[in-house]
Amino acid sequence: MMPPCIRVLHGPSLNLLGRREPSVYGDRTLREIDALLATEAEALGLTVDCHQSNHEGALIDLIHGALGPCAGILINPGAYAHSSLAIADALRAVSLPAVEVHLSNVHAREPARHRLVVAGACIGVIAGFGALGYALGLRALLPHIQRR
Amino acid sequence: MMPPCIRVLHGPSLNLLGRREPSVYGDRTLREIDALLATEAEALGLTVDCHQSNHEGALIDLIHGALGPCAGILINPGAYAHSSLAIADALRAVSLPAVEVHLSNVHAREPARHRLVVAGACIGVIAGFGALGYALGLRALLPHIQRR
Amino acid sequence: MMPPCIRVLHGPSLNLLGRREPSVYGDRTLREIDALLATEAEALGLTVDCHQSNHEGALIDLIHGALGPCAGILINPGAYAHSSLAIADALRAVSLPAVEVHLSNVHAREPARHRLVVAGACIGVIAGFGALGYALGLRALLPHIQRR
Amino acid sequence: MMPPCIRVLHGPSLNLLGRREPSVYGDRTLREIDALLATEAEALGLTVDCHQSNHEGALIDLIHGALGPCAGILINPGAYAHSSLAIADALRAVSLPAVEVHLSNVHAREPARHRLVVAGACIGVIAGFGALGYALGLRALLPHIQRR
Amino acid sequence: MMPPCIRVLHGPSLNLLGRREPSVYGDRTLREIDALLATEAEALGLTVDCHQSNHEGALIDLIHGALGPCAGILINPGAYAHSSLAIADALRAVSLPAVEVHLSNVHAREPARHRLVVAGACIGVIAGFGALGYALGLRALLPHIQRR
Amino acid sequence: MMPPCIRVLHGPSLNLLGRREPSVYGDRTLREIDALLATEAEALGLTVDCHQSNHEGALIDLIHGALGPCAGILINPGAYAHSSLAIADALRAVSLPAVEVHLSNVHAREPARHRLVVAGACIGVIAGFGALGYALGLRALLPHIQRR
Amino acid sequence: MMPPCIRVLHGPSLNLLGRREPSVYGDRTLREIDALLATEAEALGLTVDCHQSNHEGALIDLIHGALGPCAGILINPGAYAHSSLAIADALRAVSLPAVEVHLSNVHAREPARHRLVVAGACIGVIAGFGALGYALGLRALLPHIQRR
Amino acid sequence: MMPPCIRVLHGPSLNLLGRREPSVYGDRTLREIDALLATEAEALGLTVDCHQSNHEGALIDLIHGALGPCAGILINPGAYAHSSLAIADALRAVSLPAVEVHLSNVHAREPARHRLVVAGACIGVIAGFGALGYALGLRALLPHIQRR
Amino acid sequence: MMPPCIRVLHGPSLNLLGRREPSVYGDRTLREIDALLATEAEALGLTVDCHQSNHEGALIDLIHGALGPCAGILINPGAYAHSSLAIADALRAVSLPAVEVHLSNVHAREPARHRLVVAGACIGVIAGFGALGYALGLRALLPHIQRR
Amino acid sequence: MMPPCIRVLHGPSLNLLGRREPSVYGDRTLREIDALLATEAEALGLTVDCHQSNHEGALIDLIHGALGPCAGILINPGAYAHSSLAIADALRAVSLPAVEVHLSNVHAREPARHRLVVAGACIGVIAGFGALGYALGLRALLPHIQRR
Amino acid sequence: MMPPCIRVLHGPSLNLLGRREPSVYGDRTLREIDALLATEAEALGLTVDCHQSNHEGALIDLIHGALGPCAGILINPGAYAHSSLAIADALRAVSLPAVEVHLSNVHAREPARHRLVVAGACIGVIAGFGALGYALGLRALLPHIQRR
Amino acid sequence: MMPPCIRVLHGPSLNLLGRREPSVYGDRTLREIDALLATEAEALGLTVDCHQSNHEGALIDLIHGALGPCAGILINPGAYAHSSLAIADALRAVSLPAVEVHLSNVHAREPARHRLVVAGACIGVIAGFGALGYALGLRALLPHIQRR
Repeated sequence: MMPPCIRVLHGPSLNLLGRREPSVYGDRTLREIDALLATEAEALGLTVDCHQSNHEGALIDLIHGALGPCAGILINPGAYAHSSLAIADALRAVSLPAVEVHLSNVHAREPARHRLVVAGACIGVIAGFGALGYALGLRALLPHIQRR
Repeated sequence: MMPPCIRVLHGPSLNLLGRREPSVYGDRTLREIDALLATEAEALGLTVDCHQSNHEGALIDLIHGALGPCAGILINPGAYAHSSLAIADALRAVSLPAVEVHLSNVHAREPARHRLVVAGACIGVIAGFGALGYALGLRALLPHIQRR
Repeated sequence: MMPPCIRVLHGPSLNLLGRREPSVYGDRTLREIDALLATEAEALGLTVDCHQSNHEGALIDLIHGALGPCAGILINPGAYAHSSLAIADALRAVSLPAVEVHLSNVHAREPARHRLVVAGACIGVIAGFGALGYALGLRALLPHIQRR
Repeated sequence: MMPPCIRVLHGPSLNLLGRREPSVYGDRTLREIDALLATEAEALGLTVDCHQSNHEGALIDLIHGALGPCAGILINPGAYAHSSLAIADALRAVSLPAVEVHLSNVHAREPARHRLVVAGACIGVIAGFGALGYALGLRALLPHIQRR
Repeated sequence: MMPPCIRVLHGPSLNLLGRREPSVYGDRTLREIDALLATEAEALGLTVDCHQSNHEGALIDLIHGALGPCAGILINPGAYAHSSLAIADALRAVSLPAVEVHLSNVHAREPARHRLVVAGACIGVIAGFGALGYALGLRALLPHIQRR
Repeated sequence: MMPPCIRVLHGPSLNLLGRREPSVYGDRTLREIDALLATEAEALGLTVDCHQSNHEGALIDLIHGALGPCAGILINPGAYAHSSLAIADALRAVSLPAVEVHLSNVHAREPARHRLVVAGACIGVIAGFGALGYALGLRALLPHIQRR
Repeated sequence: MMPPCIRVLHGPSLNLLGRREPSVYGDRTLREIDALLATEAEALGLTVDCHQSNHEGALIDLIHGALGPCAGILINPGAYAHSSLAIADALRAVSLPAVEVHLSNVHAREPARHRLVVAGACIGVIAGFGALGYALGLRALLPHIQRR
Repeated sequence: MMPPCIRVLHGPSLNLLGRREPSVYGDRTLREIDALLATEAEALGLTVDCHQSNHEGALIDLIHGALGPCAGILINPGAYAHSSLAIADALRAVSLPAVEVHLSNVHAREPARHRLVVAGACIGVIAGFGALGYALGLRALLPHIQRR
Repeated sequence: MMPPCIRVLHGPSLNLLGRREPSVYGDRTLREIDALLATEAEALGLTVDCHQSNHEGALIDLIHGALGPCAGILINPGAYAHSSLAIADALRAVSLPAVEVHLSNVHAREPARHRLVVAGACIGVIAGFGALGYALGLRALLPHIQRR
Repeated sequence: MMPPCIRVLHGPSLNLLGRREPSVYGDRTLREIDALLATEAEALGLTVDCHQSNHEGALIDLIHGALGPCAGILINPGAYAHSSLAIADALRAVSLPAVEVHLSNVHAREPARHRLVVAGACIGVIAGFGALGYALGLRALLPHIQRR
Repeated sequence: MMPPCIRVLHGPSLNLLGRREPSVYGDRTLREIDALLATEAEALGLTVDCHQSNHEGALIDLIHGALGPCAGILINPGAYAHSSLAIADALRAVSLPAVEVHLSNVHAREPARHRLVVAGACIGVIAGFGALGYALGLRALLPHIQRR
Repeated sequence: MMPPCIRVLHGPSLNLLGRREPSVYGDRTLREIDALLATEAEALGLTVDCHQSNHEGALIDLIHGALGPCAGILINPGAYAHSSLAIADALRAVSLPAVEVHLSNVHAREPARHRLVVAGACIGVIAGFGALGYALGLRALLPHIQRR
């Protein structure tokens, strides 16, 4: 039996991680985070399938595409977290268990980042712990995967 | 003389119709709706040209592309209806007659869905009647097509 | 068997149709719209029973009075659409299927007309298509009538 | 030739004038105000036709009914001044020149009375001068009557 | 000496009580509530004079009409409770002691029902106890009646 | 069988009743109100167990402590009524029937007192009738106690 | 005995009257309005003392300066009407009777002009009647002058 | 060398866990969560020191008291999370690393729970994963503890 | 005759003064401030009675307790200044003269600290002058003490 | 060596002190306050240089003019305190230490006076203590003067 | 033929340029900017006529005074940009082409500087480029000058 | 040495320039603007690299892609200017100097266009000067390019 696969989605500008404002977002690259997630997933009996896009529509396509091959979604919607009712609708439409992750503590930043529109369509949210937040997110997804 | 063509645009997650929250959006698939629209259009002396995209930008490209081949637009902008000034601008830019359709009654849902940003660039709006709303939308467009 | 009857309710100042700001509301009189609705209803196997009132309370009385003789309600609440929780409550109280119609595209007018208080108690809303909107409204009611 | 007639409309609770909170609304009765207006009108070559109603709908009926017999409207919409889009629409529908009068200075009272919804459909507003305000309102209407 | 009379006013759609959404408003009819009030009033040395209207203006007429024959007012303004500055003004104008009653707990319902515009013109408010609330309202009025 | 006990909770500064702004809160002391409640309770086949605290946390402890010994809660949360989501959560957590009482008519006071945060977790609210409001609150609780 | 003098104050840009947007403000010059006011004042047994300034501070100086020589103030604060708490304070400080006049109907213009900050410190407001509004304002002041 | 100690703080009504609305908060008791945390802490080379209080002030005392004996704070502020600037100030005052945990997904609940006032004073937030969230919170604290 | 006593109340986290963010709150400890106040008080013919608590309820208890032994209150409500209607009510209930002090200039900090809820129940406010503010507060109280 | 000079600025209508609403602003004249300040300044080893203007621009000129001759600013901006970003900018531009004083407790007055725009550019604010507030303000400035 | 003259207006505190917060506003003095503008103007076949004032009213006087001698206006309204409807009205009254310039990028500063009230009365706005912005503003005006 | 290259980005519907509402956006095509920019760039010792996209995500990709080949960014984000935190984040991530240009004066249009979300991540903004604005934008970028 194949281990369940988690689709990992990184939103806008996360491809620049490590180069982009390291005081806010940390100094690991996205490639390093994806490698860390692969290791962590294996330890939990899971696999990961990682994607990054700057396009809201592409993130929605990838959420839809998870229906079938994947057992859950780990998503960092970046700035779209604060406005995209369309991503929230896509998550509700596929009804796969989903966890939202943010590298920075959005609640400690400017007011426009305090409103979380996508989060209402997820199981929960983890924000402020840098790359570690993704690993915690996988663990938070696990019981919802096993329950299926 | 060729019958006038109406470009039909379905926004984000409408490709999942039938699978997606049927208590909210009904149980017909998008393919069935497009077939229904083709039949309805023929009866009204029109043709339809149907597209779905999860990308706000692709919807704008398709609105622009309607200028020339098409005589009107029937659009269900999905969640973009509530925020996309860019889709509204695209409709104003091509100034083709346009009708907005929603499957669900957005006014009976959560407050974020009460604000209709795209609607101000359309002739009018039809919301809450499921797939039938598209057929009614074609009829609502008709006098504006004939007038051209 | 008698054909089902739809109560048609026209709200404040709609008695002046044709005389009143034709660039906004069209040039047909209310009498012409009622005649059009009677013809349309007959084609759909329905009858209509049309009333106009400038009184919010009278519209509520007429909604209550529909319970028994009528199978559905087609209502253009005029300006009361934007404030009358009492009309919305009356529609919920009788729980007949109802459709809201507006001659003009309220979403393209001043902000005070963007909020639709009555609409949340209806199946859906049709706005912006002039007199044709009433005919479309009858069609939108039809499946809800047959289902009863 | 008959002198032009001005329809004078007094809104809710103005029938209690003189008895009702005289420190806010003055101590003249409505009958005295109507008599004063008849005298003033005669001096200006006008007649007045005065009505009071507590019903928003009845005030709308009376506005509609002014179309034909009357050359202008002098209206104190009372508390409806702050919410009735329907009265504003009725005034726009008949497009007779109209002047809004308030006995008290609404701008010096609680915030709910600062918003004037009907006033946008009038030539102008006179507020705070008690019964005298009606007489000034007649004078303010005069040039708009003569121009017709 | 005649026992003092309390005018009881029931607002819009309360005539449908028992038929209307019993999970929200209870299953007693208005007639049963009025009978209950008559009994309760007698026990308290009062009489009641009960009216229902869907018309805001009629409720105002009835408030005005209470001045003289009645010693107090018990009012359930229904949906008008949340918007009618005109009813509040009428209560202030007659300055009879008044108590506002709501069958349902308006504070536990949607936000539009949290704002109580009429209540500021009453002695106090009783909400959420169904038909019993009217009986409590009579008792709450009592000391204000005796004091007159 | 022991009569059911109602926990009565008085919030901040209610210990000063009689001394504190009697024009707003009346001239009875809290001890007198508690005595009145004991008498009233006995007449209704109930007992009361009365507490006052200025501490939001102590009120929550007392709500929790009612679970077991008490059959219902009568609470005047004082100023905490307008902000304490924590008291509302405590009432929901114990799910005992609860009635909220206010001595003054909060709806006739400054806007900060119009928002009732705790009330949504109660059966209903009684406000504006001074000490009598507590007695009415006991009666309002009664049917919910007997139903258990 | 000298006739009482009314200080007339014209706010910012009113010096350009006649040249400035005549469709909004009319085509009379300020000099013509002042002449008209002198004539009108004489007929009422008053004199006027007219000033225009674009400076909020100068208008305040002139309000202060009215204390002593003048018996009342007629003020068109122009755009300062919508923001100047300082002018309102100056009027309250001198406590001379004051009437606010606007040439245009501010309630029919953009929302920023609906808020009247100065008006709360006046007896009342007259808006929308062009130059005639000043003459009406003098008449509205008259009874307050005589009462002193 | 002693392992570093983490102070765990549970806010209002969390003592009722397991009994309180299990569909929202899960069915584990607080004692079980504290046991789980002790085990988890040991595995991470930490100890925990757990407290629950319904008192905002007591939570602040406990935050202050952590300065010295403890190396970090894991806090579920319950309903105080949405309003307590005082708890946020206490966390900033001691400047120990802190992580906020919520059992439920506050972003998917009513709007009053979307605003996180305490979170801005923490490293980050974990919400929606039930008891597991506390365990994840300990892991999220770990790198901030070791760094000290 | 005993010198009048002023109750000095320090709110949440002020016990950490000197240790807590000295760039915001200064580097004096609370003990030093209390000593300074004792000296200052003696010079003014007063005594002080100083308390600190992190509990809103305890601050209210201390305000109540001042009634009798104390002639005035000097309060730094800390973060409760911005939300506590209950502390404001307690001050109004005892009606002792009170002065509010803040170490930092709350008006130059984040918007949540601009709203002063307690201040409306005080004679006045002194903010931004560090420990010196307390000494100035004593002087500001003095004339209100002597007047009693 | 010359004693440092403090520029004292009194804003709009403060020239009327003593004559103007003494229940709000006290009964001392501005001349008396300036004399009091001169005495107080001498005691503190300072001199004062006092100005009053009703002109926002003149107050800005005087702030600029303080740069050089003066060592600090004591300003009562009157009603400009609530709106003048320009005065705040002027204070920031000269970066002299400044203290804002208000005679009345602005926090206990109408909401428009709760917002303090200028205060953010000052060291702190003293409000509600009448003429004494100016003397306290000088003392509050003193340590900032000596530090220069 | 004389070259057209552009009136250049510098608002409050711009006289302090170079001395005032150079990190925000740059280090050139106003005299240097005026010299730069004279050179730039000559190159474009224009002349400039430069003024600075801290007085809103003086800026309005200068706008009025431009009517006749000047062909356009280049204005940096400073802090008045965010509130002065009166300056906007003055620009509309003279209807000369006007360009608004800001040294700093107001959109990247605090929210109170994001609202541009004067800008709606100008051709356009240039913000964020320091002294260079004035030169660009002259070029932006040029086509509107030549068109006259 | 190669001249520095500026990436020019045109947002949604700008491909329709010349055809689209010329009264708002001017009559030049995008091709003509790009040609004009190439000429202007050459004169300034720069080159330009022009792109248009209707896709928010594609604009972000192009911003990222500028890192390396380009020395600055000139962006007209069209309707995305008013909502796209994601574009703002992308600009901050690459930290290239950027200038925002709008053809129309967004501050003179409907309120939804007054909020500039992207602008905070740019050096400054130029709005309202049609195609000329792009040329001015290049000049505004120049000193920031040379400084690198």
